[in-house]
Amino acid sequence: MAKPYLIVVHGPNLNRLGVRKPDTYGRRTLPDVIAMVQTVADAYGLDVRDVQSNHEGALIDFLQQHGPEAVGILINPGAFGHYSYALRDCLEDIDRPTVEVHISNVHKRESFRHQLVLSDVVLGQVVGLGTDGYRYAAEALCQRWQQQRSLTD
Amino acid sequence: MAKPYLIVVHGPNLNRLGVRKPDTYGRRTLPDVIAMVQTVADAYGLDVRDVQSNHEGALIDFLQQHGPEAVGILINPGAFGHYSYALRDCLEDIDRPTVEVHISNVHKRESFRHQLVLSDVVLGQVVGLGTDGYRYAAEALCQRWQQQRSLTD
Amino acid sequence: MAKPYLIVVHGPNLNRLGVRKPDTYGRRTLPDVIAMVQTVADAYGLDVRDVQSNHEGALIDFLQQHGPEAVGILINPGAFGHYSYALRDCLEDIDRPTVEVHISNVHKRESFRHQLVLSDVVLGQVVGLGTDGYRYAAEALCQRWQQQRSLTD
Amino acid sequence: MAKPYLIVVHGPNLNRLGVRKPDTYGRRTLPDVIAMVQTVADAYGLDVRDVQSNHEGALIDFLQQHGPEAVGILINPGAFGHYSYALRDCLEDIDRPTVEVHISNVHKRESFRHQLVLSDVVLGQVVGLGTDGYRYAAEALCQRWQQQRSLTD
Amino acid sequence: MAKPYLIVVHGPNLNRLGVRKPDTYGRRTLPDVIAMVQTVADAYGLDVRDVQSNHEGALIDFLQQHGPEAVGILINPGAFGHYSYALRDCLEDIDRPTVEVHISNVHKRESFRHQLVLSDVVLGQVVGLGTDGYRYAAEALCQRWQQQRSLTD
Amino acid sequence: MAKPYLIVVHGPNLNRLGVRKPDTYGRRTLPDVIAMVQTVADAYGLDVRDVQSNHEGALIDFLQQHGPEAVGILINPGAFGHYSYALRDCLEDIDRPTVEVHISNVHKRESFRHQLVLSDVVLGQVVGLGTDGYRYAAEALCQRWQQQRSLTD
Amino acid sequence: MAKPYLIVVHGPNLNRLGVRKPDTYGRRTLPDVIAMVQTVADAYGLDVRDVQSNHEGALIDFLQQHGPEAVGILINPGAFGHYSYALRDCLEDIDRPTVEVHISNVHKRESFRHQLVLSDVVLGQVVGLGTDGYRYAAEALCQRWQQQRSLTD
Amino acid sequence: MAKPYLIVVHGPNLNRLGVRKPDTYGRRTLPDVIAMVQTVADAYGLDVRDVQSNHEGALIDFLQQHGPEAVGILINPGAFGHYSYALRDCLEDIDRPTVEVHISNVHKRESFRHQLVLSDVVLGQVVGLGTDGYRYAAEALCQRWQQQRSLTD
Amino acid sequence: MAKPYLIVVHGPNLNRLGVRKPDTYGRRTLPDVIAMVQTVADAYGLDVRDVQSNHEGALIDFLQQHGPEAVGILINPGAFGHYSYALRDCLEDIDRPTVEVHISNVHKRESFRHQLVLSDVVLGQVVGLGTDGYRYAAEALCQRWQQQRSLTD
Amino acid sequence: MAKPYLIVVHGPNLNRLGVRKPDTYGRRTLPDVIAMVQTVADAYGLDVRDVQSNHEGALIDFLQQHGPEAVGILINPGAFGHYSYALRDCLEDIDRPTVEVHISNVHKRESFRHQLVLSDVVLGQVVGLGTDGYRYAAEALCQRWQQQRSLTD
Amino acid sequence: MAKPYLIVVHGPNLNRLGVRKPDTYGRRTLPDVIAMVQTVADAYGLDVRDVQSNHEGALIDFLQQHGPEAVGILINPGAFGHYSYALRDCLEDIDRPTVEVHISNVHKRESFRHQLVLSDVVLGQVVGLGTDGYRYAAEALCQRWQQQRSLTD
Amino acid sequence: MAKPYLIVVHGPNLNRLGVRKPDTYGRRTLPDVIAMVQTVADAYGLDVRDVQSNHEGALIDFLQQHGPEAVGILINPGAFGHYSYALRDCLEDIDRPTVEVHISNVHKRESFRHQLVLSDVVLGQVVGLGTDGYRYAAEALCQRWQQQRSLTD
Repeated sequence: MAKPYLIVVHGPNLNRLGVRKPDTYGRRTLPDVIAMVQTVADAYGLDVRDVQSNHEGALIDFLQQHGPEAVGILINPGAFGHYSYALRDCLEDIDRPTVEVHISNVHKRESFRHQLVLSDVVLGQVVGLGTDGYRYAAEALCQRWQQQRSLTD
Repeated sequence: MAKPYLIVVHGPNLNRLGVRKPDTYGRRTLPDVIAMVQTVADAYGLDVRDVQSNHEGALIDFLQQHGPEAVGILINPGAFGHYSYALRDCLEDIDRPTVEVHISNVHKRESFRHQLVLSDVVLGQVVGLGTDGYRYAAEALCQRWQQQRSLTD
Repeated sequence: MAKPYLIVVHGPNLNRLGVRKPDTYGRRTLPDVIAMVQTVADAYGLDVRDVQSNHEGALIDFLQQHGPEAVGILINPGAFGHYSYALRDCLEDIDRPTVEVHISNVHKRESFRHQLVLSDVVLGQVVGLGTDGYRYAAEALCQRWQQQRSLTD
Repeated sequence: MAKPYLIVVHGPNLNRLGVRKPDTYGRRTLPDVIAMVQTVADAYGLDVRDVQSNHEGALIDFLQQHGPEAVGILINPGAFGHYSYALRDCLEDIDRPTVEVHISNVHKRESFRHQLVLSDVVLGQVVGLGTDGYRYAAEALCQRWQQQRSLTD
Repeated sequence: MAKPYLIVVHGPNLNRLGVRKPDTYGRRTLPDVIAMVQTVADAYGLDVRDVQSNHEGALIDFLQQHGPEAVGILINPGAFGHYSYALRDCLEDIDRPTVEVHISNVHKRESFRHQLVLSDVVLGQVVGLGTDGYRYAAEALCQRWQQQRSLTD
Repeated sequence: MAKPYLIVVHGPNLNRLGVRKPDTYGRRTLPDVIAMVQTVADAYGLDVRDVQSNHEGALIDFLQQHGPEAVGILINPGAFGHYSYALRDCLEDIDRPTVEVHISNVHKRESFRHQLVLSDVVLGQVVGLGTDGYRYAAEALCQRWQQQRSLTD
Repeated sequence: MAKPYLIVVHGPNLNRLGVRKPDTYGRRTLPDVIAMVQTVADAYGLDVRDVQSNHEGALIDFLQQHGPEAVGILINPGAFGHYSYALRDCLEDIDRPTVEVHISNVHKRESFRHQLVLSDVVLGQVVGLGTDGYRYAAEALCQRWQQQRSLTD
Repeated sequence: MAKPYLIVVHGPNLNRLGVRKPDTYGRRTLPDVIAMVQTVADAYGLDVRDVQSNHEGALIDFLQQHGPEAVGILINPGAFGHYSYALRDCLEDIDRPTVEVHISNVHKRESFRHQLVLSDVVLGQVVGLGTDGYRYAAEALCQRWQQQRSLTD
Repeated sequence: MAKPYLIVVHGPNLNRLGVRKPDTYGRRTLPDVIAMVQTVADAYGLDVRDVQSNHEGALIDFLQQHGPEAVGILINPGAFGHYSYALRDCLEDIDRPTVEVHISNVHKRESFRHQLVLSDVVLGQVVGLGTDGYRYAAEALCQRWQQQRSLTD
Repeated sequence: MAKPYLIVVHGPNLNRLGVRKPDTYGRRTLPDVIAMVQTVADAYGLDVRDVQSNHEGALIDFLQQHGPEAVGILINPGAFGHYSYALRDCLEDIDRPTVEVHISNVHKRESFRHQLVLSDVVLGQVVGLGTDGYRYAAEALCQRWQQQRSLTD
Repeated sequence: MAKPYLIVVHGPNLNRLGVRKPDTYGRRTLPDVIAMVQTVADAYGLDVRDVQSNHEGALIDFLQQHGPEAVGILINPGAFGHYSYALRDCLEDIDRPTVEVHISNVHKRESFRHQLVLSDVVLGQVVGLGTDGYRYAAEALCQRWQQQRSLTD
Repeated sequence: MAKPYLIVVHGPNLNRLGVRKPDTYGRRTLPDVIAMVQTVADAYGLDVRDVQSNHEGALIDFLQQHGPEAVGILINPGAFGHYSYALRDCLEDIDRPTVEVHISNVHKRESFRHQLVLSDVVLGQVVGLGTDGYRYAAEALCQRWQQQRSLTD
């Protein structure tokens, strides 16, 4: 049986993490972030599977394939968080515990960034805490999994 | 000469038909639905060509290739129906008789589902009649084709 | 015991069907449409009772009298569909399967026609498929009745 | 000279009181409600004249005939309360003390029920107190009449 | 052959003309107004047929019966002018030259009176000129008819 | 003592009357319209003073000079009717009976034409009756003047 | 065991009752109103505990202390009714039957008074019936308590 | 010199934590939450000072006194987060790193909870992760402090 | 008899005047401002009574106690100016000449600062003229008092 | 070298000051107001140059000619304050300290008067303090000039 | 016969080009811009006639005189582009090919600059390309003229 | 070293250029347009790299690969211009001079086409000048490059 795993999903332009606007998004690269999540997951005996794509459809394909069996989903949807109802439907459909991460505080930026269309199908959000936000989100998903597993043991 | 045909287009997450929220969308799978449309088309001597994709671009590519020669188009755009102006432009461009199908009654659901951006470039809509809606939509497109053909004979 | 029956309700100005804007609404008259529905109903052994009135109150009176025992309701509310919350309350109260029909695609027309106040108390809608839409709506109601009867047999 | 009287006006679908959604509207029927108002009125030596209609015009006809001489008006407009500016004009025209009653708390229900177009031509409202609300409204109108009569004696 | 005629339509509460708010609406009664219109019509050899009702449906019935053959229509819709899309559809359907009259300047009054749903299916409006407005509207319709008749002679 | 007079005010582009969009505005020129108003005024022994300008300030200058002593004001503000609060303040300040004329039915045209910022400081409006509208407006102002003069005699 | 009791809560500026705008709010003072409620409560063997404060926090403190054990709550929130979501949360939390009273008809006054943020967590409202409204509200709460007690006996 | 410290601020009704809607807010009490934050702070050698009040002014008084010297601020504003611009001004004024915590996912709840007026003066938010959210927020503030201290050493 | 006096009211966070954002609000402290007002008042033989509080209720308590006898009120409501309808009701109730002062030009700042809920119950406003604005406001209130006193002498 | 000077700008209809609505705008005429400003300016050794026009363009011409060298600008834009973005651009371009004066409290009047398009390019506003407002505005500009001159000496 | 010509229209404040905000609008003066357009026009054998005014009416006067015979119109309306419906009517009336130029990218600036009321009566727009935009606009008008002349030869 | 180059990006359905709605978009095909841009670029010694895709993600992939080194970007986003915040983020991230081209005047078409989400991250726009617009946009980018190169030489 495959090792239980977390999913980490990154939306468009996040492959440029560490390069794009470092004052806003910090200097950690995408591999740095994934490694940081893996470190948290290791402590719980979990694997991490991740995807980054500029294609909305590719994210949905990945989620449909890996999501239903995942322990939890950590998603930074990038700009898709502002309009992708298809991604929202996908998350609602696979119905796994999901935490949305935004590196910057989107509420301080342009008004179109205040609309977050995934926000009512996720468990919660970590916003504006930089790339450290991934660690807190990963913690939250792992602990939740551990608690629920202990209940069903 | 190729046999005349209908096109059936399914948007994101509809590959999960029969699995996703069966209380809302019913238990028929996507192949079941296509077969149901083919049954209607057979009675009129028509073929059916179909596509499902989570990629907006893939639906447009398909419609650009197969649409201009089609007898009619039956589309369930899924969430793309709420924001894909690219799909709308494509349908308007190829300008074939199109019927939009929604399995559930979108007007009873979240308010973002009330905006339907394709609705003013299609012929009509069948909403909330479950997967049976495809049969009525297929009927409508086939009869319309038959009538127009008899006029030009 | 009375034969089971469908109800067909027509709102204001629809007595002028076949005369009013034939390019928009087609050339079938109201009796033609009722006959078409009766043909569908006959195949299921059902009667049809119909009403047309320019008086909102008369439609509600009729629905209160005949609605609670009907197999299903097929309603083209005409302009009442844009503002009659009284009709909406009535349909919600008698709580029978209802399909709303609009002959033309209201979404292509004036913006006031985009508000449809009955849409969240009906089962579904058939929009823009001309007077053929009645046939599909009648089919949907009859089949649903047949299925549910077979379940309870 | 005719005995002084209160008017009780009921809008569409309220003839179904006691039958329609009893969990929302309670089990008292319309005659029960009228009797309850009559009991209050008796204590002040007043008659009660009432009307229920699904026809907006019928309510206005009745109010024009009986309203100008009434001691006060108790109205549950049903759905007309959300859009009937004609009824609003009528009440404003006859200009008698009027109390609007809603059996359920309309502010807890669908958003269209939050618009109450009569609310600025009535004296006041009793909302959400069930059919008992009629008794309080009747009390208020009777006492007001008694006070004003004592002033003019 | 029947003498050619104008139609004069009065909406709800206008039977109270001369009684209701005389400071706003003047002291002429409804028969006075009809007589004033008849005087204009006489000069052109035209009859006048009129209706007043508090029932939206009754106005539509009347217009469907007498409208299609009328020389022109003069309508004071009262409060129906603010929400009756059914009346709007009816006027659009019978498609005769129509002038809308409002005795008071509705733009100086409550904001709900600023929405006039008939205004884009009528020829024009005379607003705020008191009951004299009927005479101007009648003049306009009669002259228009005379001009068009002389063109077709 | 100067002869009593009416004022006729024309806003921007109305010097092009008879040339500009004759299908919308008719073929009468501005001098034709003034002559038509003069004919009405003659019957009441009144003069006519008129102004047309593309300059908002010039209209206000004229109104401040001639307005306070005028019998009444007939104004077709053209596009200024949609945004000139300065003109509105001026009319409110000089406080003479004013009738606003629009040759075409502005409610059938672009949405910006539906905002009429003078409408709540004028007596009334004549809309959509072509250049004949000026005659009705002039009638209304003259009659009103005659009535009030007879009251004060 | 403490005697069962009703709570009466008054928001800001209501200590000025009888002094502030007597034409709007009447001449009864706050002690008069409390006495009136006590009279109703006496008939049911209930005590009354009341609070008035200009401090939102003081009302919440009082409700948290006395609310959970109260038979019912009668609240005139004054201006807090237009924006105090903290008070709303408090009422929702302690979850006792609550009736909101407004002495004047808030729907006839400034538009900011039309937003009532408590209205969907209370049982009902008595609006515009003057200080008599307290008596009706108290009646409603007492009767409800008596009925429910008799059910559980 | 006083030991460096974190501030924890709780808005109205949060003294009822563990009692109020445990399905929404969990079963941990306010002292439990403070203890949890203290545990995180201990690891960094920091103290915790906390306040809970139903009085907006009391929170501002506390923040003005203790805020300017604090290492960071952790705030769950409760309902004040939806309208207290005074609290927002206070946080902006004292200008210390602040993290806003909401125990439940406010985006899934009533629409008034979607407006968060502090969100553009805080560093970030942790939303919907239950009372565990405090731990993540405390972590974030402590680490940030540690990093900045190491930079200035 | 007590010496006649002006009231100066300061809302939340204004105790920090001179410390908070000195580039926006200047370097004068709250005592400096009060002294400046006292200097103006001295010239008219008036006392000054002032209050600053972060508690909305405390401002209302003070105004209820000292307001009704005051010569005039000078208020800088701080953030309460954007949402405190309770303060607005209080000012309207005590009904004394009031001038609202904002030190910075609120119209150049965040959009929530553009809503000023007291603005229609005050005499006028002095905005954006720095702390000098208090002197102008004090002048205005003193002169007004002097003029009215001289009228009644 | 020319004597340093203030500019006073008056928009449309303000030449009627003292005549127009004296209850709203007071009885001082425009020359009275200019003289009042000159009195303030004299104390600082400043001249006053003023303009009043009903022509938006004339105000801009004047400001372009005299503005760039002025010590400060005092503007009562009249109705232009509600829509003249050209005037706003002009003030922003010449970039001199400007105070906007409104004689009446515009926030108490029609809603269109609440939009003030110059408000974010001026230093501040004096609103509702009658024609005395000019004196305060002149004071503010003169003092500011004196302070800045003393800094650069 | 006069040489064919282009018209160049500049709205308010554009006489200050090269002086006003050079970082936004560049350092070319208005004569520089006209010379640049003339250079383009020379290559096509066309003259240039230009106007700049701060008076809306002066621009309309000029356009009415020179517009109907022009080859094309190049207009930078300045702030009039945001509200001058009179200018819009004028351009629509004279109905010549028109290109609107904005030197800066108005979409990056204040929100009132996003409304462009001429945009639906012009052929097209060149926005944000600095004063070079005039050259492109002139090219476009000249080429269009050349093409259409060659068609009619 | 690679030759410096321009990028030309075409969004969905623009592969159909020359075929789709030729009356709106002209008869030039996509290769024609690219060739036209190449002709401009040749004169400056620049290459052209282009992409067309119906896939939003493919455009972003291309821009991330070729954009950061490009001299400038010419983009016709098609329908993506109305909702693709992902594309907007991408352009903002790579931060090269960009000109947006729309062949038709989008402001004359459906209202959804008036929202242009890229407009505040581009340098400027050329709208409605047909396919010639590409030539002007290319000119603008080439000249800008040439100017900046000459500055840094």
